[in-house]
Amino acid sequence: MNYDLPALLSHVDAHIEDSLERLKDILRIPSVSTDPAFADDVRRCAEHMGGLLRELGMETTVHDTEGHPMVVAHDPGPGTDDAPTILYYGHYDVQPADPYDLWESDPFDPQIVDHPDGTRIVARGADDDKGQLMTFIEAMRTWKEVHGSLPVRVIVLLEGEEESGSASLDPFLESHRDELKADACVICDTGMWNRTTPAVTTMLRGIVGVEAILHGPGHDLHSGMYGGAVLNPINALSRIVGALHDDQGRVQVEGFYDDVDEPAELETWQGLGFDEAAFLASAGCDTSVGEAGRSVLERTWSRPTCDANGIYGGYQGAGGKTVIASSAGVKLTCRLVPDQDAEKIRAGLIKFFEDRTPPGGRWEFLGEGAFPAIRVPTDSPWLQAALDGLESVWGTSPVLMGCGGSIPVVGSFQSILGLDSLLVGFGLDDDRVHSPNEKYDLSSFHNGIKSHVAILGRFAEAASA
Amino acid sequence: MNYDLPALLSHVDAHIEDSLERLKDILRIPSVSTDPAFADDVRRCAEHMGGLLRELGMETTVHDTEGHPMVVAHDPGPGTDDAPTILYYGHYDVQPADPYDLWESDPFDPQIVDHPDGTRIVARGADDDKGQLMTFIEAMRTWKEVHGSLPVRVIVLLEGEEESGSASLDPFLESHRDELKADACVICDTGMWNRTTPAVTTMLRGIVGVEAILHGPGHDLHSGMYGGAVLNPINALSRIVGALHDDQGRVQVEGFYDDVDEPAELETWQGLGFDEAAFLASAGCDTSVGEAGRSVLERTWSRPTCDANGIYGGYQGAGGKTVIASSAGVKLTCRLVPDQDAEKIRAGLIKFFEDRTPPGGRWEFLGEGAFPAIRVPTDSPWLQAALDGLESVWGTSPVLMGCGGSIPVVGSFQSILGLDSLLVGFGLDDDRVHSPNEKYDLSSFHNGIKSHVAILGRFAEAASA
Repeated sequence: MNYDLPALLSHVDAHIEDSLERLKDILRIPSVSTDPAFADDVRRCAEHMGGLLRELGMETTVHDTEGHPMVVAHDPGPGTDDAPTILYYGHYDVQPADPYDLWESDPFDPQIVDHPDGTRIVARGADDDKGQLMTFIEAMRTWKEVHGSLPVRVIVLLEGEEESGSASLDPFLESHRDELKADACVICDTGMWNRTTPAVTTMLRGIVGVEAILHGPGHDLHSGMYGGAVLNPINALSRIVGALHDDQGRVQVEGFYDDVDEPAELETWQGLGFDEAAFLASAGCDTSVGEAGRSVLERTWSRPTCDANGIYGGYQGAGGKTVIASSAGVKLTCRLVPDQDAEKIRAGLIKFFEDRTPPGGRWEFLGEGAFPAIRVPTDSPWLQAALDGLESVWGTSPVLMGCGGSIPVVGSFQSILGLDSLLVGFGLDDDRVHSPNEKYDLSSFHNGIKSHVAILGRFAEAASA
Repeated sequence: MNYDLPALLSHVDAHIEDSLERLKDILRIPSVSTDPAFADDVRRCAEHMGGLLRELGMETTVHDTEGHPMVVAHDPGPGTDDAPTILYYGHYDVQPADPYDLWESDPFDPQIVDHPDGTRIVARGADDDKGQLMTFIEAMRTWKEVHGSLPVRVIVLLEGEEESGSASLDPFLESHRDELKADACVICDTGMWNRTTPAVTTMLRGIVGVEAILHGPGHDLHSGMYGGAVLNPINALSRIVGALHDDQGRVQVEGFYDDVDEPAELETWQGLGFDEAAFLASAGCDTSVGEAGRSVLERTWSRPTCDANGIYGGYQGAGGKTVIASSAGVKLTCRLVPDQDAEKIRAGLIKFFEDRTPPGGRWEFLGEGAFPAIRVPTDSPWLQAALDGLESVWGTSPVLMGCGGSIPVVGSFQSILGLDSLLVGFGLDDDRVHSPNEKYDLSSFHNGIKSHVAILGRFAEAASA
C-alpha cells in the first residue's frame, strides 16, 4: 500500500505526550513475575495490554498458562493477499524493584526527569521491556490513526514470564504454532550502539553449562593425619580447571574451535570506534583479559568462552579449618558462537575432565539445557528493511551488533516457529535495567516509535519487491 | 630410691576396679569447654581433679584464668636433692557430645562394654583425655600407696581449654614459668602403634596457613556481557593453585624443601609393617596419592604438604548462575616438618601467588599464626627411660612414631618453658575420639597405669645414672 512517511512521523511527534501517558499507565502496574505476591498485578497488566491492542482493532486474547498470561493479538493488515505477516514480541512483566530504598522515586510511579544527556522516564520497566514494547504498539497506533490500517499483517505476542524463566513460552509456542505462523519476527528488547546510533543485533552467543564435582576421600579428613597421602580434591580440581586455558587464553577442550568462524561483521566492528576503556570501567576493570590477539568486541561477541561461574569445596567460613574435603566442584559455562554444537561442547568438556581424572578421584557431572548461538542472516530482506527504516529516522547507518549474552526466546522462535528474529531495540547502556532507578530516554521512546513506523512501511515494500 | 616394680604392678592389678570407678566419676562430669552452657561443669571438673590430686598429698591450686580453670599440683617426690622434676600434662575438658542420637548410651554415663577386641569403657572423654590423664594420676597413687612417695618430683598441669583453642595456656605458662620449671615433660594425649604395641611420638608436623584471595572485576559481572574479555578470578586462581604441585606431587613453592631432612627414624618405620590398606580404608580411599617415591608413613609423618582446605568463589547454590565473580579465594595450610621455618614458608607461599598475579588481578592475603614441627631428641635419657618403662610392661619394643598433626601445647612447652615433651599415650585408632561412642580400651587404661608406674621409676634411675 502507498503511505506517507512524513505524515506518519509528524503524527508521532504531535501525539508523543499521549503515547507517554499510555506508557506511564502501564508502568504504574507492578507486574513483577517472580514474586507470587504480585500475581494479580501481572494479570491486571496482561488485561491492560490486551485492552490497548483491542483499542487498535486487533483480535486479542489473553491466554491463561500454567504461569502468567500470554497476550496474543492479530491484525489483518491492509487486506491484500500478498501482505506478509510479522510477529512482534515483547514482555510486559518486570524485575522486582527491591532494594526500594535505593530508588530516588517510587519505582511504580513513573517520573519524567531532566538530565544533561536528555530527558528520561524513570520507573521499573521503563526500558525492560514496557518502554521498548510500547515503541512498536504506538507505531501500530500511528499507522491506524493516519492510514486506517497496518501495511502488513501483524501478530503481537506479549509474554508475562520473561523475567522469571519463560516456563510457559515453549509449550505455548508449540501449541499455537499455526496461529503464530509469520514471515518474520521483531523482538524489541535490545539496545542501540549509542545514544544517537541505532542498531540491529544479529549475533547472540549461546551457552552450555557443566558442573563437575570431583569426589575423593569417603569423608572429610583431618589434614594432619592424612594430608600428603590422599587425594585432595580441591588441589586436583584446581589443577584441571587451570588447564582449561593455555597461556594465550585459548580453551583447551578438544575440538572447541572446530566450528568457529570469523563473522562477516568483523570488518564493520573494527570501524565502530568501540570505547574499550568505558566498557572496562563499567566492569571495574583496568585491563581486558582474554584470547590473545582479539579485540574486546570479538572476545564478547564472536569468540566462545569457558568461564567458571562458581567453585566450592572444603571449609568456607571465616578463619581456617584443617580439613581435607571429600569433594570439590566447579560450575562452568561456555558461551558459544554460531555453528558450535552445544552438545558436542558439553561432551568435550566432560571428556576434558575425565581424561584428567586423578588417581583416587571420581567425577559427578551435573547440568542440563543449552542454547545454541544465534546468527541472523545478514542478507535477509527483512533485516535490510529494518536497517533502512532505522536509517530514515535516525539519519545514520545502524550498526550490526553482536551480543555476548543469550536471549532464549530467539532460540525458541527459531526452533519451534522456524523464524529468524530481528532484534531491534532502543535501550542504552546506562538504562540501569534490573537495577534501581531504571530509566528510558525519551529520545529512545520517541524515535523508537518513529523507527517502528518506518520499519512497518519498509516491511510492506520488502514483501512486494 | 629403691623400688619394687612387681609389687607396684600387682598393686595396680589389685586396685584396677577402684581406678576405674575414679575414672567413671570424672567421665560423669560434662566438662564441655566450647559451650558456655557447660561452664559450671567445667569448673566442677577442675575442682574434682584438684580434689583427687590433694588426696594424693599434692599441693594443689585450681587457678582462675580468662577462660576455664588451670589445675596445678606439686609433689616433692622422694625428698632427695638430686631427684628430677617431671611435668605431667593432660586436659580435663572434652569435646561436645552431639549428635546425641548417634550415641548408644548417654555420653556422660560411662558404660563398660564387652567387645571381641577387648572390654572398653564408653563415654565422651573416655580416651580424650580423661582416660589418658588418669593413667598417670593412678600411677602416682600407686607409688604413694605402695612406697609412700613418688620417686621423682612431679608437677601436674591439667588444662580445661584444650578442645576450645587453649587461649589461656600460653599466658599461664608465661606467668608461671618459674613454678613450672622441670627437667622433662610427659604429655598423655597420643596413641599406641597398635593394640599390643606401645609408642612414643617423637615427631609432630607443624603448620602454617595462608588464605589467598584474588580480586578482579569491581563487582560480579554478567558472564554473557563480559565473559571472555575480563579476568575471571576463579579460572585464574585455579590455575595458580593447580601449579602448587608438579607431576611428582612436589610442592613448587621456592625453597620449600631446603630445610627438609630424612628423619633418623626412617629405617625403623620401614620395618613397622604399617598397614597402608587399613589406613586408606579409614579415609574411604582406595589409593594413596602424594609425593612420588614416598611411603604413606613418610607422606604423613616426615614430608611437608601444601593442602587446600577450602576454595570458594562465585555462585555456590544449586543449579547455575551466569556470573563472573569479582573474587575467588583459597585457604591453604602447609604441614611442616622439623627445621622448616614457618615464616619462611609463609613468605614463600605469598611470593608464589604474587609471582603469578594475573593481569587485572590483585591479591589479599589472610592468616596468622603457625606452629613449627616438633622433634623430640631421640638420644634423650628421658626418652630412653620412657621406652624402657613401656617395654617392661608391654613386653615388646615401643615404636618411635611420627604424627601428621600438630599438638600446640608441645610447642608452647618448648618455646615458653624450654622443655622437650615426651608424648606417651595409649589411645587406639578406633577410639572414636571427637565422635559418638568414644571409648578407651580397658587394656589401654590398665597397662597405661602400669606403664606410668614403670616410667616413673625409670625417670628416677635416669636422673641418678
